[in-house]
Amino acid sequence: PSSSVAKLLELKAQLGGDDGKQTFVLKTAKGTRDYNPKQMAIREKVFNTIVSCFKRHGAETIDTPVFELKETLTGKYGEDSKLIYDLKDQGGELLSLRYDLTVPFARYLAMNKITNIKRYHIAKVYRRDNPAMTRGRYREFYQCDFDIAGQYDPMIPDAECLKIVYEILSELDLGDFHIKVNDRRILDGMFAVCGVPDEKFRTICSTVDKLDKMLWEDVKNEMVKEKGLTEEAADQIGEYVSMQGGMDLAERLLHDPKLSQSKQACAGLTDMKQLFSYLQLFQITDKVVFDLSLARGLDYYTGVIYEAVLCQTLQAPTPAPAEQNGAVSGEEGGVSVGSVAGGGRYDGLVGMFDPKGRKVPCVGVSIGIERIFSIMEQKAELSAEKVRTTETQVLVASAQKNLLEERLRLTAELWNAGIKAELLYKKNPKLLTQLQHCEETGIPLVAILGEQELKDGVVKVRNVATREENSQKNNLQFKIHRSSSQQYREHLECIDHC
Amino acid sequence: PSSSVAKLLELKAQLGGDDGKQTFVLKTAKGTRDYNPKQMAIREKVFNTIVSCFKRHGAETIDTPVFELKETLTGKYGEDSKLIYDLKDQGGELLSLRYDLTVPFARYLAMNKITNIKRYHIAKVYRRDNPAMTRGRYREFYQCDFDIAGQYDPMIPDAECLKIVYEILSELDLGDFHIKVNDRRILDGMFAVCGVPDEKFRTICSTVDKLDKMLWEDVKNEMVKEKGLTEEAADQIGEYVSMQGGMDLAERLLHDPKLSQSKQACAGLTDMKQLFSYLQLFQITDKVVFDLSLARGLDYYTGVIYEAVLCQTLQAPTPAPAEQNGAVSGEEGGVSVGSVAGGGRYDGLVGMFDPKGRKVPCVGVSIGIERIFSIMEQKAELSAEKVRTTETQVLVASAQKNLLEERLRLTAELWNAGIKAELLYKKNPKLLTQLQHCEETGIPLVAILGEQELKDGVVKVRNVATREENSQKNNLQFKIHRSSSQQYREHLECIDHC
Repeated sequence: PSSSVAKLLELKAQLGGDDGKQTFVLKTAKGTRDYNPKQMAIREKVFNTIVSCFKRHGAETIDTPVFELKETLTGKYGEDSKLIYDLKDQGGELLSLRYDLTVPFARYLAMNKITNIKRYHIAKVYRRDNPAMTRGRYREFYQCDFDIAGQYDPMIPDAECLKIVYEILSELDLGDFHIKVNDRRILDGMFAVCGVPDEKFRTICSTVDKLDKMLWEDVKNEMVKEKGLTEEAADQIGEYVSMQGGMDLAERLLHDPKLSQSKQACAGLTDMKQLFSYLQLFQITDKVVFDLSLARGLDYYTGVIYEAVLCQTLQAPTPAPAEQNGAVSGEEGGVSVGSVAGGGRYDGLVGMFDPKGRKVPCVGVSIGIERIFSIMEQKAELSAEKVRTTETQVLVASAQKNLLEERLRLTAELWNAGIKAELLYKKNPKLLTQLQHCEETGIPLVAILGEQELKDGVVKVRNVATREENSQKNNLQFKIHRSSSQQYREHLECIDHC
Repeated sequence: PSSSVAKLLELKAQLGGDDGKQTFVLKTAKGTRDYNPKQMAIREKVFNTIVSCFKRHGAETIDTPVFELKETLTGKYGEDSKLIYDLKDQGGELLSLRYDLTVPFARYLAMNKITNIKRYHIAKVYRRDNPAMTRGRYREFYQCDFDIAGQYDPMIPDAECLKIVYEILSELDLGDFHIKVNDRRILDGMFAVCGVPDEKFRTICSTVDKLDKMLWEDVKNEMVKEKGLTEEAADQIGEYVSMQGGMDLAERLLHDPKLSQSKQACAGLTDMKQLFSYLQLFQITDKVVFDLSLARGLDYYTGVIYEAVLCQTLQAPTPAPAEQNGAVSGEEGGVSVGSVAGGGRYDGLVGMFDPKGRKVPCVGVSIGIERIFSIMEQKAELSAEKVRTTETQVLVASAQKNLLEERLRLTAELWNAGIKAELLYKKNPKLLTQLQHCEETGIPLVAILGEQELKDGVVKVRNVATREENSQKNNLQFKIHRSSSQQYREHLECIDHC
């Protein structure tokens, strides 16, 4: 039935409306957006900060296709699998759009038998989720992933991932933040000693994961009424998940009479102590909290997990209605942007792809860039500074008519000299129009051609902001002799910087 | 039936093979590939060249989603529409992966009522074509598009597009190339005066488009036997499409007794003369050929069209079997990479999206980057120079045991000073292992910690290539006093550059 609807829609589009024009909705797909030049300028700035950090830590980069064989994604995301976009079966393989960059990374490692790599990957991923675009939640969105694969001594790469989150969030200047840390083994050990049956570990874990959006009362209700846990077990869990601290808490829990019964929990707590000792060397413990309520949704984590949260709230452009999409209500009236980075250790994922099940231990972090974009865009809106969307240094203009050929010739000379130059695509544009173009787009210099300049073999260069044309005081040559490319470049760069 | 196959495959994947392991094919989807770090390094270099050129010409950049409403793509690509990837109907809108960047650009302009813009867009597009990956033909591939939209005086933006192709292909240093130019109006006028019925213009145009891959004999056969053209008409077309030249040819054809009967052809020829006069000012006529056999596949062109072809041939990694995918056999034994850039004027496309049919004239060019990557990769293979995939400046190493904490502390100091630094994630790596890591990955410097250095409060820095540790002759400080970040940076950068 859906395919006949498609055919009807297609026919309708081809036939068009009553006026002979095609009638269709002019929009992007639900949950997606275009980036205009201003948004792109902000996006590039954010990417540069993130990529610089990844490179500072010695990472290589890879890329994978936007779609994978459907079976590559099967069984990796638990309950979230329903959010995967499938491609239509047009004959051939069954394909799905990637849901994250971690599973394709693991597939890449197994396929190429790579056992050691430190790589970053910045690309779009796809989730058929309920979009909440004013808060930076989209169906198509960027992830910026950094992962370290290899058999190493415990907690050293894990600590570096946290250092990276710390560096990036500090450099982006997004206000105060903190990074919650926990360990899947501590969670599992806690469930075991609280009397949760083995087969309910994952589902109880998903319920605990909702603690950042729901009150404990409601989380407990879900555990007891929906998932059949005893009230006693739920209360014991409740005690543990309210705990927060640092290395001291890990030390204390290692001696907790109940939790220390679990070998798993002890292994996790010992590693947590080790992790904090490295974080102290990195001097980043001021922002890191060992938080037993952190659970994280994805199935594939096996050890340390973490999540970074901004303390700042984001002003929603339109008054947000009742929260439906799991976003947190901000305490200060705005809307909390919530988690902006997350990750953890997943030592079993690569093995799921290896024909012989050989494991490659991995740990990584994903920066949730869309929420960061939203904040940066709002900042740009509020700021008086105008965002330039081109880098043009000089506009080649004419003061008189019939100088198109001269303008074209000079512009080409500038391009050939590596100078960013533009001209208006009109035969006889008014000088005022040309100057207005400079002011609108922020071009700092205008090279003005006139009969006299052509006769003298010079070009008059004007600083658009100051309107200076021939100042001797800065010892600048505002009239450039049209000679070598090298001289052009030197002259213009000098004028541009002064 | 296809959905039950899908279910069976999924079940099979879940159940796994006899040994309890999952059995599935470990591969990327047909016609797609991963980029490994070395390929990414080459890709970034090519992108940098291209983006620099686009920015030098004053372009902004935008981005659009990877999928569009299916109806947005309907009726834009003629016979090629069958190559569009559709998404599965999972409830909601019917979506397709973008086939090029031009249609999404036109949709963007109409949707945002933009009538003037010069923008570039670099992104992946998707075509369910027969892949020929050894020659750089993929189902997922990058396009690098530059377009100028707006009502301007004739041929000025068109000439700039050709200048851009010329600059990029020259800078990428891919060997000799030429750019063929023609005009849809000249083609249509030619068809008219040769007696092709109006309704056969587009289909005969597609046949002419095959002239770069087929002999004239075969093209003629297709026109006469498959498409029902008279032999006389075909022969007349044959005479025209064998013509090549420059401004002189346009001038001559304006006086051609037959062709000059067509108003359309005359308009195209007059513009062609104008175009060549601008190309002369840009000094690029040495590579541009007015070629009446150039037709281009896409439906939406309305004026000037062009295509750049490399003269160089590409050595196929494996002996290529019979050519099936339309690639040209090279004359020198290798495989011609064929067209590496193409584009033209499309004045009607934006109007197809505007509810009132308002037109926005556009002209643009698309750089076919995958073929360029193939060539660059082969060049890198043949070159002795090793491609570095990281930018790490210094490895923090230790000469003795039990110095992990000192290594971590120093590495963090370097990161905080903005220096690209790494350490091995082992508690007690051998010095030799650490030095080998530098040699394998091209890290130029190693900072070696030992008991004595720690006591003295200094770090010994070794140049990996020269093994110099303490040379006075260059007046370099190979022992750095661990003081301020700024000093670190200055010292290391100095050492790195010397």
